[in-house]
Amino acid sequence: MVSVNENFLKLSESYLFSEIAKRVNAFKIANPDKKVISLGIGDVTRPLPKASIDSIHKAIDEMGDEKTMRGYAPECGYSFLIEAIIKNDFNSRGISLEQDEVFVSDGAKSDTGNIGDILGVDNIVAVTDPVYPVYVDTNVMGGKAGNLQAGVWDRLVYLPCTPGNKFVPDFPGKEVDVIYLCYPNNPTGTTLTKEQLKGWVDYALKHKALLLFDAAYEAFITEQNVPHSIYEIEGAKQVAIEFRSFSKTAGFTGLRCGYTVVPKELTVYDEAKNVVSLNQLWKRRQSTKFNGTAYIIQRAAEAIYTPAGKQQIHETIDYYMENARIIKENLESIGMETYGGVNAPYIWMKTPKNVSSWDFFDRLLNERQVVGTPGVGFGKSGEGFLRLTAFGKRTDVLEAVDRMKIKS
Amino acid sequence: MVSVNENFLKLSESYLFSEIAKRVNAFKIANPDKKVISLGIGDVTRPLPKASIDSIHKAIDEMGDEKTMRGYAPECGYSFLIEAIIKNDFNSRGISLEQDEVFVSDGAKSDTGNIGDILGVDNIVAVTDPVYPVYVDTNVMGGKAGNLQAGVWDRLVYLPCTPGNKFVPDFPGKEVDVIYLCYPNNPTGTTLTKEQLKGWVDYALKHKALLLFDAAYEAFITEQNVPHSIYEIEGAKQVAIEFRSFSKTAGFTGLRCGYTVVPKELTVYDEAKNVVSLNQLWKRRQSTKFNGTAYIIQRAAEAIYTPAGKQQIHETIDYYMENARIIKENLESIGMETYGGVNAPYIWMKTPKNVSSWDFFDRLLNERQVVGTPGVGFGKSGEGFLRLTAFGKRTDVLEAVDRMKIKS
Repeated sequence: MVSVNENFLKLSESYLFSEIAKRVNAFKIANPDKKVISLGIGDVTRPLPKASIDSIHKAIDEMGDEKTMRGYAPECGYSFLIEAIIKNDFNSRGISLEQDEVFVSDGAKSDTGNIGDILGVDNIVAVTDPVYPVYVDTNVMGGKAGNLQAGVWDRLVYLPCTPGNKFVPDFPGKEVDVIYLCYPNNPTGTTLTKEQLKGWVDYALKHKALLLFDAAYEAFITEQNVPHSIYEIEGAKQVAIEFRSFSKTAGFTGLRCGYTVVPKELTVYDEAKNVVSLNQLWKRRQSTKFNGTAYIIQRAAEAIYTPAGKQQIHETIDYYMENARIIKENLESIGMETYGGVNAPYIWMKTPKNVSSWDFFDRLLNERQVVGTPGVGFGKSGEGFLRLTAFGKRTDVLEAVDRMKIKS
Repeated sequence: MVSVNENFLKLSESYLFSEIAKRVNAFKIANPDKKVISLGIGDVTRPLPKASIDSIHKAIDEMGDEKTMRGYAPECGYSFLIEAIIKNDFNSRGISLEQDEVFVSDGAKSDTGNIGDILGVDNIVAVTDPVYPVYVDTNVMGGKAGNLQAGVWDRLVYLPCTPGNKFVPDFPGKEVDVIYLCYPNNPTGTTLTKEQLKGWVDYALKHKALLLFDAAYEAFITEQNVPHSIYEIEGAKQVAIEFRSFSKTAGFTGLRCGYTVVPKELTVYDEAKNVVSLNQLWKRRQSTKFNGTAYIIQRAAEAIYTPAGKQQIHETIDYYMENARIIKENLESIGMETYGGVNAPYIWMKTPKNVSSWDFFDRLLNERQVVGTPGVGFGKSGEGFLRLTAFGKRTDVLEAVDRMKIKS
């Protein structure tokens, strides 16, 4: 008799965004004349860069000609894209990488979810709190999270990030093997300095732990001394995998392309104490369970590294970061406590008077018709916060902050 | 200390195609003046259908306009594509499906590989022999295959498919829980009749087993009484998941799109004997570890269901099947024993005089400069066979068969 992976049964329905949608819909039905503005969803709204569109037009015509059509792509990415990635995203910061250390994929969500495939089920996994839910849910599916007890998974180690520690997580109180770090952070929009990140690399070196570094929001960094890649830190290649995404950098949420760096220096030991290369294991995973990213999409990604492409994505990122500034400054002007929004498209807003995340969400929806994401949905330490995103249209952002500034 | 998934360490490098490439390259270096023709790889060579190319031009322009751009796609597929799939691939054969029973993805390789995520590690898995290596390798990675002993995995149940049983696998001699069936078959090119497939559905119903039915080559069926979908068989919705791909149907190997059907009637039991819906588990898996197929690719897939698209893919399939006919008839004309090639783009050729697969491969390469795939690479029961594919250019196919017909 066929049996299921029982770990899946421990997961509830994806509660957060469906609950938000439920409440918003109920409000709209009761108030059909009122316009609701969402600053809740982390999805882009600006068009794709023209350089990428031009590339796709060209590439798809190649696919229509017998002489230039392409079949299966290399499972781990075309050289033309990998070369552009290494040159622009790494060499420019003094980091050298070999071509077979970069794995092109259909996005960082897939990669951060699938990376668990190559790791042992006995690893103790640490996540920051609040956290991007995919890290937690995929560890539940893979049997590494244990059981849910009073809202927390009993095998996971949570690293609280709060105003109390300036959103810099303390090192775990117990031994951990795998640590997810997302910087610039989703949902708090905060960052680590080079020195702070070095602390984590040193921790991992000392404890033979693995860092899973999600740099999906790297392109939004505006300040100096905020590392764009973990490999800016000495020794990181021995302990860290880095995830990157074109989703927010270049508006690719609907195109799907990202990449993951697994350095060859990153070695671990198996049960028999033999050296194992995670690079080889990830290559085996990707070439067996994935069949490459579409040629035309890889050409679109390559195009963002051209002078025109760079200019275009720069303009779009500036647009979103101006939204972030507007949200942050306006909220602060009325005495609200906010974090993030400087090196990331997320503003992490403290609710006034310690109102709970959901109560504040309801108030904002009912009284101002503005939608945010309740911070508690990202974890216990997110209680009392609301995440606002800077991906909206300017007119909506301006109207939303005006509404939030009206005195009740 | 971080530990790896030790199951990965049991896998050798993907031996088959790298070994072929090694031998072909060595030959080419030693014989730079000789033209090698490959009938070995299962990748398409004809251009994409014009209807799909036109759709991509249109869709990518939508992505460049603020008013029509699309962000994240629905994780399980856009309605416009799912509706076209249900209407054309299922309703046309008297099968009804609901929209949320069809899951659009980046291809059948991903889905047949990832499906193991939702199944318990204790399941006993059966595969036909010879077999598409992804089924085996992903079960090794997931800890369901046991250990490799003399070339076979000791927890897998192999179902030999040979001329002796007319390539119709016998039911397993021991209880199994999960059975992979690929029809039309890769690599043998053979099919099951409705009655034969009904036998497997009845077996699964009786034994509460799950059928994983890979119908990636469905579009190549030419004969009556060969089922295109397992759901043509009564009761199949209770026991079968079906995988489909646009790769071979419409030349999408380099675009990446496929879909998987998980009927809601397909229920299993958990340890506590509660009913579990695999449809819900797969939905949870896909929405957590996958972020949807690109909008422009889904529009390209939708286009193959238009009258122009149908006509175009029909022409290409006919082209490949004419190649198959040429290969098969020419080989038979010189007394070779061949299988497949009528409802599938693969010809499964018995080597002359019981020569081993690799010896025959070497002879064909060295003496005729034609490359096939050694059957033993697909499993023990493939020993003494060579797989030839019909995806080449007509001129190459004609030259290859001419070379093979020369008496030595």
